[in-house]
Amino acid sequence: MNFDAAQLRYNEAGLVPVVAQDHRSGEVLMLAWMNRGAVERTLASGRVTYWSRSRQAYWVKGETSGHVQKLVELRVDCDADALLVLVEQEGPACHTNRRSCFYSAVQGGEVVEIMAPMA
Amino acid sequence: MNFDAAQLRYNEAGLVPVVAQDHRSGEVLMLAWMNRGAVERTLASGRVTYWSRSRQAYWVKGETSGHVQKLVELRVDCDADALLVLVEQEGPACHTNRRSCFYSAVQGGEVVEIMAPMA
Repeated sequence: MNFDAAQLRYNEAGLVPVVAQDHRSGEVLMLAWMNRGAVERTLASGRVTYWSRSRQAYWVKGETSGHVQKLVELRVDCDADALLVLVEQEGPACHTNRRSCFYSAVQGGEVVEIMAPMA
Repeated sequence: MNFDAAQLRYNEAGLVPVVAQDHRSGEVLMLAWMNRGAVERTLASGRVTYWSRSRQAYWVKGETSGHVQKLVELRVDCDADALLVLVEQEGPACHTNRRSCFYSAVQGGEVVEIMAPMA
């Protein structure tokens, strides 16, 4: 079956949530959003491209920071309303300079930082 | 810092997206949603509990299927609008009986099924 980005089930803002995962380590790096154009650009360029909800613009991950995500594989979930991108992540994925955006864990009712910024 | 589920940044429907990941294999199992009550119930019970958008009700994962998710750790992302739950998954996470909901990959413009239902 041909993949058609128009067939995904976008929310009322025209977006789907996208989980980015390091294709080697399996680490979950971040969650961001794509619209149909971002899905198509990601597949065509091999550079993971999100839709920035704050800027209302395409966001080629790493375009300014250099922390690019090279697409290894794009996967679709069972009801076609969420995506998983396996990526080769250059440097930190998080704007706080941490490898992953999920660096805060809830442990015993406390928020604990489990990951330091990269050098 | 004490964790307070009220401090998360919920969307206009009062929900945050939640990525469930197998705590041993690192496999991303599914993406679902929680409201504040679901976050609190998950932490209090140790059983991952989502908010079903279709049923508009709490959804204790595996309550009917037996395919429960035991919470290992809950993590919050840098801008507090997405969660990652590391889980011990009993059986398949997907209602199609596959281990993960992300069983379809886009390869060469085609949608390819990369995971079979569990026996």
